[in-house]
Amino acid sequence: MKLPGQEDFEGSDAHENVRSEELDGDLGPGSGLDGPSDIDNGKARGCKDPLLFIQLNELLGWPQALEWRETGRWLLFEEKLDIGAGRWSAPHVPTLALPSLQKLRSLLAEGIVLLDCPARSLLELVEQVVSGESLSPELRGQLQALLLQRPQHHIQTTGIRPCRGSNAFRKASRDEDAPLKHQNPLRQKLPPGAEAAAVLAGELGFLEQPLGAFVRLQNPVVLEPLTEVVLPSRFFCLLLGPPTLGRSYHEMGRAAAVLLSDPQFQWSVRRASNLHDLLAALDAFLQEVTALPPGRWDRTARIPPPKCLPSQHKRLPSKLQEVTSLSRQSAALAENKHHHGPHTPIPELQRTGSVSQRCSTFTWPQSQMPSLLGVFWEMPPKVPRDYSLDYLPFRLWVGIWVAIFCLALVATEASLLVRYFTRFTEEGFCALISLIFIYDAVGKMLNLIRAYPIQRPGSPAYGCFCQYPGTEGNASEWTSTMFKDTEDVLNHPGLVNASFLPPSECIRQGGYPRGPSCHTVPDVAFFSLLLFFTSFLCAIALKHIKNSRLFPSVVRKVFSDFSSVLAILLGCGLDAFLGLATPKLLVPTEFKPTLPGRGWLVSPFGANPWWLSVAAALPALLLSILIFMDQQITAVILNRAEYRLQKGAGFHLDLFCVAVLMLFTSALGLPWYVSATVISLAHMDSLRRESKACVPGEAPNFLGIREQRLTGLVVFILTGVSIFLAPVLKFIPMPVLYGIFLYMGVAALSSIQFMKRVQLLLMPRKHQPDVLLLRHVPLSRVHFFTAIQLACLGLLWVIKSTPAAIVFPLMLLGLVAVRKALECVFSPQELLWLDELMPEEEKTIPENRPEPEHLFSGNDSEDSELMYQPKAPEINISVN
Amino acid sequence: MKLPGQEDFEGSDAHENVRSEELDGDLGPGSGLDGPSDIDNGKARGCKDPLLFIQLNELLGWPQALEWRETGRWLLFEEKLDIGAGRWSAPHVPTLALPSLQKLRSLLAEGIVLLDCPARSLLELVEQVVSGESLSPELRGQLQALLLQRPQHHIQTTGIRPCRGSNAFRKASRDEDAPLKHQNPLRQKLPPGAEAAAVLAGELGFLEQPLGAFVRLQNPVVLEPLTEVVLPSRFFCLLLGPPTLGRSYHEMGRAAAVLLSDPQFQWSVRRASNLHDLLAALDAFLQEVTALPPGRWDRTARIPPPKCLPSQHKRLPSKLQEVTSLSRQSAALAENKHHHGPHTPIPELQRTGSVSQRCSTFTWPQSQMPSLLGVFWEMPPKVPRDYSLDYLPFRLWVGIWVAIFCLALVATEASLLVRYFTRFTEEGFCALISLIFIYDAVGKMLNLIRAYPIQRPGSPAYGCFCQYPGTEGNASEWTSTMFKDTEDVLNHPGLVNASFLPPSECIRQGGYPRGPSCHTVPDVAFFSLLLFFTSFLCAIALKHIKNSRLFPSVVRKVFSDFSSVLAILLGCGLDAFLGLATPKLLVPTEFKPTLPGRGWLVSPFGANPWWLSVAAALPALLLSILIFMDQQITAVILNRAEYRLQKGAGFHLDLFCVAVLMLFTSALGLPWYVSATVISLAHMDSLRRESKACVPGEAPNFLGIREQRLTGLVVFILTGVSIFLAPVLKFIPMPVLYGIFLYMGVAALSSIQFMKRVQLLLMPRKHQPDVLLLRHVPLSRVHFFTAIQLACLGLLWVIKSTPAAIVFPLMLLGLVAVRKALECVFSPQELLWLDELMPEEEKTIPENRPEPEHLFSGNDSEDSELMYQPKAPEINISVN
Repeated sequence: MKLPGQEDFEGSDAHENVRSEELDGDLGPGSGLDGPSDIDNGKARGCKDPLLFIQLNELLGWPQALEWRETGRWLLFEEKLDIGAGRWSAPHVPTLALPSLQKLRSLLAEGIVLLDCPARSLLELVEQVVSGESLSPELRGQLQALLLQRPQHHIQTTGIRPCRGSNAFRKASRDEDAPLKHQNPLRQKLPPGAEAAAVLAGELGFLEQPLGAFVRLQNPVVLEPLTEVVLPSRFFCLLLGPPTLGRSYHEMGRAAAVLLSDPQFQWSVRRASNLHDLLAALDAFLQEVTALPPGRWDRTARIPPPKCLPSQHKRLPSKLQEVTSLSRQSAALAENKHHHGPHTPIPELQRTGSVSQRCSTFTWPQSQMPSLLGVFWEMPPKVPRDYSLDYLPFRLWVGIWVAIFCLALVATEASLLVRYFTRFTEEGFCALISLIFIYDAVGKMLNLIRAYPIQRPGSPAYGCFCQYPGTEGNASEWTSTMFKDTEDVLNHPGLVNASFLPPSECIRQGGYPRGPSCHTVPDVAFFSLLLFFTSFLCAIALKHIKNSRLFPSVVRKVFSDFSSVLAILLGCGLDAFLGLATPKLLVPTEFKPTLPGRGWLVSPFGANPWWLSVAAALPALLLSILIFMDQQITAVILNRAEYRLQKGAGFHLDLFCVAVLMLFTSALGLPWYVSATVISLAHMDSLRRESKACVPGEAPNFLGIREQRLTGLVVFILTGVSIFLAPVLKFIPMPVLYGIFLYMGVAALSSIQFMKRVQLLLMPRKHQPDVLLLRHVPLSRVHFFTAIQLACLGLLWVIKSTPAAIVFPLMLLGLVAVRKALECVFSPQELLWLDELMPEEEKTIPENRPEPEHLFSGNDSEDSELMYQPKAPEINISVN
Repeated sequence: MKLPGQEDFEGSDAHENVRSEELDGDLGPGSGLDGPSDIDNGKARGCKDPLLFIQLNELLGWPQALEWRETGRWLLFEEKLDIGAGRWSAPHVPTLALPSLQKLRSLLAEGIVLLDCPARSLLELVEQVVSGESLSPELRGQLQALLLQRPQHHIQTTGIRPCRGSNAFRKASRDEDAPLKHQNPLRQKLPPGAEAAAVLAGELGFLEQPLGAFVRLQNPVVLEPLTEVVLPSRFFCLLLGPPTLGRSYHEMGRAAAVLLSDPQFQWSVRRASNLHDLLAALDAFLQEVTALPPGRWDRTARIPPPKCLPSQHKRLPSKLQEVTSLSRQSAALAENKHHHGPHTPIPELQRTGSVSQRCSTFTWPQSQMPSLLGVFWEMPPKVPRDYSLDYLPFRLWVGIWVAIFCLALVATEASLLVRYFTRFTEEGFCALISLIFIYDAVGKMLNLIRAYPIQRPGSPAYGCFCQYPGTEGNASEWTSTMFKDTEDVLNHPGLVNASFLPPSECIRQGGYPRGPSCHTVPDVAFFSLLLFFTSFLCAIALKHIKNSRLFPSVVRKVFSDFSSVLAILLGCGLDAFLGLATPKLLVPTEFKPTLPGRGWLVSPFGANPWWLSVAAALPALLLSILIFMDQQITAVILNRAEYRLQKGAGFHLDLFCVAVLMLFTSALGLPWYVSATVISLAHMDSLRRESKACVPGEAPNFLGIREQRLTGLVVFILTGVSIFLAPVLKFIPMPVLYGIFLYMGVAALSSIQFMKRVQLLLMPRKHQPDVLLLRHVPLSRVHFFTAIQLACLGLLWVIKSTPAAIVFPLMLLGLVAVRKALECVFSPQELLWLDELMPEEEKTIPENRPEPEHLFSGNDSEDSELMYQPKAPEINISVN
């Protein structure tokens, strides 16, 4: 008896995963099922069965105008011809009536089965099939002519009205055969080597006996007009009979096509040597059919394709499964526990959402990006500043110490500690950074509003005029009196040389703006708020356009990928259009150190006493923890197994580079270099390779990352060049940037499982989504775990906000300790679903005593496999 | 061969519909299937089979600690016990493995079947079952003891930790039996008369032979501890056997339970007289099972319950179906074509949306509500006003003529023309009104911004001071010079007695505000914009909260129902908090005619020449058309069959009342009375009755409207009383109201099918939703129809905006003519799907020649029934 997920954990290693992903993923285009023999040989990617395109041609119009018509086609899923609308339906999971399968079985059992038929053309094939039947010569001729008749295909080309059964169209299509076939967009979606199967079904009045034939051709032959796509056909199935009630031959034809589209049946029937094998394959199919009761489900409902196809592993005979699992275990490599296989239970709530919503990533120059490092470094320096220390030399020493500590971490291979960073730590880290983003964006916006006060009616801010100097008025006297009592300002004698010029114009003409309202700028506060909300909402809306049904996917992708940039452009445009004096991004126009009077190199001591260079070790220690965590969590995320990276990870090398760069940037007084999770992830995301030719109904397959060094180099060169963009950047209003920061914070926060669990707190039990986590862990325990996480987050926030902020990095490490302590409160099974397991726990799980509640859950078929499999990587932390 | 939907149209009348709805709807709580005998007798609501609660108890813990445990339960759908989480799964469509059904069949065929067993307690029952087996006495005793053992139930009470198999809990539950059972929330959801069925399944090591028993009790008996809910049990099924691979007895138990939960099987087995009948019922079930192929669908995926259960009509034997359809036709009443039956093809796109989103309705005092009448009456009066005519007397004459025309319409029973108002007309009307709302809201907002200009930097609007009179300054001279040249305003001699007081304060102290910026109010424009967007977005967000998963449904319902009110309150609060001088709603404080110097009654001639009272007939004619359409379309919507109104419609009586009121309001100079679609619909919506006790997985049933006269009376009394609310209403800022108007326009526009079709124009074919309309009409024809509608709307808009606006009502009627002309362009079938049929067409359809494209669509099983059935009324036009 096994624990849920235990089987997966035993083999949860990088090597195995890639392998099983290949196996599963390859059921997509260009593959049948790996034959059991392939698996026996341990060769996952051996010679595989080609993809089968199956077409159902129905005989319609009896008795007046007999004609064959394509009414259905199958690749992975079924597409029906909606005749009224003249269009192919959306691909859907085929549903069958059980009797049609049974009738098909008996028809095949009595009919002709030709395996490895040597026919080389449709004519030969038809002759062989017809000759096998005990028919009168006249009937035989009629039948043969009928079978050779050209069927009507519905080829959906853009712009052309679908064929409506008119003779004109039929003739035209016969004349323009070749061009039409090249236009068929389906052809381009089929992988090379694909084969076809034709199922012909219908009711024929002059037949007295049902007539069934199943042919497997020895060599696939292009049966010229039978299939809409010009492909060599491997199978041919004929189901004819006298007229019946309902469309039973239509249903039998569908049943035959669905059978052929099943990978397991296909595998068997390709290797069948006689009728018995064929029927055995059909029976095996029947044994595995899912039955839906009639009273609760309407057969005619079209079920949309599942996001992931069920794995075919389950369907292999049990003996073979043992062999595979053995070969998996022997190949186990325990290098990196963060490599999740497709079956590893990662209880991610988002996966069952209606649309898999990959987390948002942003392309944004690193220099504009507040990082955790930046956020926290702003505070500690206050201490030296308050005591009037020389800041930059002190910072240099901190940098030197950090470099030393980091090098020590590299030397001691401390990155191994990364194994203790579970989802709990990652999410705590991510939530905190997101909250800082949100808090900062809102806070800065409020400061901005305070700087441009709103003028309420009755506020004494209406007075302002321009006074010219040189007249008898005494400027200094003015200054002292004017704000004392606004009522009698103008009672002052000698106020003659004055005008209503606006302040800026006044100064230009050499005058002095006088009055309480000269320094208030009206309308800016609310306009800034408008810009803030506009850019925030616009970025969110554009990001979500990806999941919309409108517009072609290319357009949606562009809008979604550049949502932040477009939102900023919109904000800038709005600002430029109205021309208000909103605060803009301050960009220095010259390339020089910001502090006047310092050179490029920071002097090592400056005005500081010597002991400060030693004392800098303490903040440096804390900073090192921060840098280590920031760097390592980023590296862990980037090296997740979902990304299928081919090149190895360099945890220690990266940290070494950071240490060296720390030294370099400290000496020059530049911003410190951090790993920048966001750009790294955005970079990775832009290099994704996905399969393009998707069979209808199939989601694009993630193939991997285009791993190279060129784009990285170019990105940073361009980032460097951006210092020459100052004339452009100064047009960006600050509220727009704050809006984007808010968006980033909100997007990052909403992408983590922790937030989904927080939502569960507010969700009535009845409306909770059906996710694996909730199937296996009692709700109260889930809530308890969430509450602990919330408490940790609150504590971190409090520490960050008080003078104790300097110990904050230590508290971050404390998250790991809290997680460790949770092992006393939660059972390993619960932690397995709520989080991941820490290294020690993983070892203890297999020996775990069977708890009563697990006695019954040995059968893992209770959990849908579809809920386990990630198709493509999902990014959790997207803002650093 | 039948056309799609033809069969439905033949019987598409009010009487039949109610009947078939009852039949279908009653498959909800409190019903099994109507027995065929009932239908033969023509009695739809005869004595029905009670609802069956089925519980699966599994034998677990072999060999150490044998215990029975409830692991599944069925009412309409399946609920599984997720043992790890200790909770019942969400209700879902049960899926079975075919072999388990087959194994069950053979087990029953060999086992004991006791029909009409007279047992009166569990002990008697167990004795009877066990005695039927050929077991050794020792085994028999063991088995009997085992069967009498108390099973463990999982009763989900709020706040109590679920039982975890601990002995303590088991003991407690035994002691506190009665209170626990009363707490079981499931009990309250079961209708009175419900019966139970217990399925006991498991593996028992000491058995050598499988042991199957099926018992139907003569009189249902409470089998005390077997079922979690205290209900009399009718069926008892025992499936035991030696240990096997996998959980095959669990699956067989599930199969038995699913069988029993099927209405058709239940009906048969209640009437079965021997084993043969039982097996025949099982075979009939198998024949109707929907089969999903294993390679494309994972059996363990939990399918959420469909929105509507499939109708059981389809499953009746064909002979019975004929009888029912005959009895339907004989009862046909062709009174009102707007009564759609559940099977009438109403191709509404919104029905297949993920969440059925009923259109938005608003509660809003009629007086605040711009109506079409208001919108268009604002324009014609310009004409007399321009020629300086006396307005109110002319209006009185228009009113008198309108009353005469309306009475003539009543006398000629013109409401019969309503039959020609199809969806095309309704949607054109609704779209136009929505657009007017949107246009007006945005336009008024822009006017407001123009009234409070934005102060850009450099705009010469900074100067303002307060000058006191009585000094030597000459006020009139000031006024003439000050705006000429702002630069030398202060050069004027004698400007001594002045101060920086704000204008209002200045005036209060007897001074004069001087300077260009005295009359500009800063910040108001942008704040108004903020209020506008806030109220608009807030109303939308609150409306959508209904479909959210968060919060209990009561809270969501309150937020959603009062979305507009809450949005207005929020806007008012924001406005009051900041205290800016935004324009507010102007409410007269006294109860008197607005025009000074006129009495309550309008004099019939005033200053107008006598012939104007005759000429008023022309505008009155147009206005009558408008009122007629407004009134009749509202009445049509309110009397739709979906609302299941019991009391008859009064089309002509309503129009008569409108005519009388027209006279009354014209004479008093009050606003004209219109039908007010929105309040009427909102009123209706608030009176909906829905079934409360819903079986898990079942959507609430719409039962009807609480038809009475009290609420209507109270609504209008309260509306009248609202004139005393002036002190409160004056705090409502206008931008907030404009925001709500925008929301109303957008909400109404997005609720109509026309807009869904407009979206189709922008949607790539691949992403189009799977709706009936698109299955039956070629996309190009759909687009063509949409384009025509768009053109009509554009034309109407242009006419409305030009001086020709006076003929606008005629153009509205023109919509009906356009719709009639469309019959030449579109086939009746296409119009049937795109619109509805006009009276003449309906007659022509049955004789329609078979078009080639319909030859193949005779089998209506291609369309899912689930797409046809509306569960509850959907409102299309929600803004008048």
